[in-house]
Amino acid sequence: MTDVRIVGAGMTSFGDHADRTGRSLFSDVARRALEDASLSSDAVDELFFSSFAGELSESQSHQAPLMASAAGVSAPATRVEAACASGGAAVRQAVTSIRAGVADVVLVGGAEKLTHLSTPDATDALSLAADERWETRIGTTFPGAYALMARAYLERFDADREDLAHVAVKNHANAVDNELAQYRNEIDVEDVLEAPIVSEPLGLYDSCPLTDGAAALVLASDDVVRSRDLSAPVEIAGIGQASDRLSLQERESLCETPATETAARRAYAASGIEPTDVDLAEVHDCFTIAEILAIEGLGFAEIGEGGRAARDGTTTATGTIPVNLSGGLKAKGHPVGATGVAQVVELVKLLTGVHANADAVPDSSVGLAHNAGGTVASAVVSVLEVVE
Amino acid sequence: MTDVRIVGAGMTSFGDHADRTGRSLFSDVARRALEDASLSSDAVDELFFSSFAGELSESQSHQAPLMASAAGVSAPATRVEAACASGGAAVRQAVTSIRAGVADVVLVGGAEKLTHLSTPDATDALSLAADERWETRIGTTFPGAYALMARAYLERFDADREDLAHVAVKNHANAVDNELAQYRNEIDVEDVLEAPIVSEPLGLYDSCPLTDGAAALVLASDDVVRSRDLSAPVEIAGIGQASDRLSLQERESLCETPATETAARRAYAASGIEPTDVDLAEVHDCFTIAEILAIEGLGFAEIGEGGRAARDGTTTATGTIPVNLSGGLKAKGHPVGATGVAQVVELVKLLTGVHANADAVPDSSVGLAHNAGGTVASAVVSVLEVVE
Repeated sequence: MTDVRIVGAGMTSFGDHADRTGRSLFSDVARRALEDASLSSDAVDELFFSSFAGELSESQSHQAPLMASAAGVSAPATRVEAACASGGAAVRQAVTSIRAGVADVVLVGGAEKLTHLSTPDATDALSLAADERWETRIGTTFPGAYALMARAYLERFDADREDLAHVAVKNHANAVDNELAQYRNEIDVEDVLEAPIVSEPLGLYDSCPLTDGAAALVLASDDVVRSRDLSAPVEIAGIGQASDRLSLQERESLCETPATETAARRAYAASGIEPTDVDLAEVHDCFTIAEILAIEGLGFAEIGEGGRAARDGTTTATGTIPVNLSGGLKAKGHPVGATGVAQVVELVKLLTGVHANADAVPDSSVGLAHNAGGTVASAVVSVLEVVE
Repeated sequence: MTDVRIVGAGMTSFGDHADRTGRSLFSDVARRALEDASLSSDAVDELFFSSFAGELSESQSHQAPLMASAAGVSAPATRVEAACASGGAAVRQAVTSIRAGVADVVLVGGAEKLTHLSTPDATDALSLAADERWETRIGTTFPGAYALMARAYLERFDADREDLAHVAVKNHANAVDNELAQYRNEIDVEDVLEAPIVSEPLGLYDSCPLTDGAAALVLASDDVVRSRDLSAPVEIAGIGQASDRLSLQERESLCETPATETAARRAYAASGIEPTDVDLAEVHDCFTIAEILAIEGLGFAEIGEGGRAARDGTTTATGTIPVNLSGGLKAKGHPVGATGVAQVVELVKLLTGVHANADAVPDSSVGLAHNAGGTVASAVVSVLEVVE
């Protein structure tokens, strides 16, 4: 089977780009990723674009051809959407396209614009990822849905709000040196516990922000890497996706995420990697509880024991498995459609030693990205491995 | 390379399903397609779902996991969106997934709900497929954009409104016996010419209707077809996609569609089929002018000569290359995200002799589906071939 290498990566700063359009942000990251790959836009055989809320935030659907033009690419251009997992799902389609021999070089990226929306409009836009009929219509918001999951977790297991708070503290600390992160300020546990409650038990600092931003990758077959003598130290060794019922009420448990478990199992099987082989991970921490459920689903902690991982240092920068060294969605920011792509961009930089936080993970060779959609009705897990 | 067979197909009637949800319509077609394939939902390795306007029409994004549940499928579920070409693009991803060895059996389908929208709301929803910044914002609607293309065509070539009218007359005639079509009434050229003008030179009968509906296919690798002894007389011999600049103003010509030409070239090359080998085609006739541009782009007529094809009988049911025997988008209806899938469903029925209009094309072995997004900023062309 064709091996898939990452030959280029680029992202904007995450934060407030209210004066930019999505296409303008994407143009930037496409150019950076192609420059990083030492490839011209002519080399691109296919483009996958991930976005979530463009219909409401920019009154724009059919964005893939628009992004192809913005990138100077003349190739089939397709949008992939899986709510907050859109980026991961787009990366997976890019990998599939190369493995099928449909494309040798794929540009995959996402962009999202959210900060210009009012809070009610942003809440409406994000609610599109929940089940309109059985959740949104009766008033469920995304913070509300994750609060239900957090409440269930705290009631079922030996964990408390302070455990959640440590996730936010860790991710803010990680973002301090990441010049592309939205929030580069350290916070402490008291800040989190004393912040306004958004949806009990989740407070303001348990929640990721609204973010504008874009990220892109250039992927290529190993044949192209050889024939063009490209620098491509990292491969996507395995990628898995899974889905679950969209509404929480239809799940067996509110505090387990079988889609993450299944996606991870598929990615591990495809790559021959086991959880204990993973050196660092970027996981989907849209809320603090989400990171805890993610590391349990990924096999980095037993079910019910992930709550203490940030608090006891397991997942901090100096821990055995640093999680969200970029700052995560919590502090780096969460431009929805770009997030899953940006996780891979950050991992490549960390694994190749060009990230501000790379010193925390010297000699690392295996990174994992975990991207979730909705309340983990979609999950995509990628295993990255240094091969050169 | 793995051959991709069509093992099951299903669609709803197209028309007014205002009392149904998208998920309910999809549940019907998924069940029908799986029954047709003699496969249970457990056999599905992957699901691709195509929809366009769900965010505005049902306040629902992240529809793929919802549709997986509706179909009883537990598999990675991904939404593909390319405006009105969403269905074709989803079929292409399904084919790619099988060719990559990612999946052996794929359920691919689309659903759309439009008839419950007011005309202004439907116009807004459809406008999402145009360039918000350079088209929609200044008042361009889809009928307006296609009217520009029609005007350019009529001015440049020896063609008139009567040529356009014959496309509508032909497609209405074809729909009469298609029990799933939205409009099964014959019309004549005078009806078209005397109908209210929507956007000059296009009148009401030059335009496809708003439609609710769903369609689904089950695709499988030839290995699975053999090992499970499935009935699979039709293969997808080649499929090609291409993109163009989103806004009309950025194109070199208003009355040529290079995305169709490129997608067709790719599909022909992949299948070893030439335009003269094609026995029948379903093409994207959202407006009468669109069918004319399509048959020229596909190589069934020279540039500038497609205008007379319906009028002189070339593309009628008894012509040398019957086009839109189903009734096309014009008369069968156009539930946007489902359309590209439905084209393939209709072709399979026509090629295997189970369609009401199959008598028009006895002994046919090659069918072509052409699905376009926006003003053909996206195009997908599939070549189907009878192999058993």
